[in-house]
Amino acid sequence: MTGIRPGELAGPAPDATDAGLQFIGRIRTPWTERADCPRQGRSDGPVCRVVVFAPWVQALDGIERFADLDLIYWLHQARRDLLVQTPRHADGPRGTFALRSPVRPNPLGLSRVQLVRREDAVLHVRGLDCLDGTPLIDIKPNRCAHSA
Amino acid sequence: MTGIRPGELAGPAPDATDAGLQFIGRIRTPWTERADCPRQGRSDGPVCRVVVFAPWVQALDGIERFADLDLIYWLHQARRDLLVQTPRHADGPRGTFALRSPVRPNPLGLSRVQLVRREDAVLHVRGLDCLDGTPLIDIKPNRCAHSA
Repeated sequence: MTGIRPGELAGPAPDATDAGLQFIGRIRTPWTERADCPRQGRSDGPVCRVVVFAPWVQALDGIERFADLDLIYWLHQARRDLLVQTPRHADGPRGTFALRSPVRPNPLGLSRVQLVRREDAVLHVRGLDCLDGTPLIDIKPNRCAHSA
Repeated sequence: MTGIRPGELAGPAPDATDAGLQFIGRIRTPWTERADCPRQGRSDGPVCRVVVFAPWVQALDGIERFADLDLIYWLHQARRDLLVQTPRHADGPRGTFALRSPVRPNPLGLSRVQLVRREDAVLHVRGLDCLDGTPLIDIKPNRCAHSA
């Protein structure tokens, strides 16, 4: 890995073999370059599509009753070795775990989104911030949401 | 895998090779059996310890300024093949993604916790619900928290 900014610190490349993930779907957003992605999802942002792969569609049963969901996804373009980072928006170097940067030892993204509607295997949601094509890892209902 | 309840539905065992995780720490809680764990973390629950492994301690720099953190951890005792589940507390079978059950294709746990204090590699937090010894995957500051 190359190209770190002043004040940044890289550790060893993670040996990522402690546990394995299966991608359960794919996220479709308007953003095709990292520079285009918003820094965080906005509740008035565009409606994006979360497409769940066939084996897991039945696991969506009952999800319509939730207004808000937590989505976990895999930031597949992010490096994993930085301990200290200097994001452009920050006032100086900060530890990776004091940032929500995509660069982290396990590059998981997490957004709380609004469920606009479900169409079979597809959830239409607002509040995402990730690249088009991002692999989906998990969907959890938000306990605090109203139930219908 | 064995032992499913009436109304539950198992799919194929996940082929979990799409991406790899590295455990970055370990969580110490008072709960040593799954039946003892609270169904969800409580803000007035016990203070638990999040022990970050040595290579990643410097990635905690600056975390003290956040009051709330999102922790992602690996539910290492959970099966991964259920599409529809009937948890004891539920009124009937529900899809896995309409539940926060530990049983899911990628058994990631997610809790928003209060940061009570940091001592070097150890974060003291409230709001966890997981077994003692649970592997830690990620720490993210909550954007909505106050900064000091």
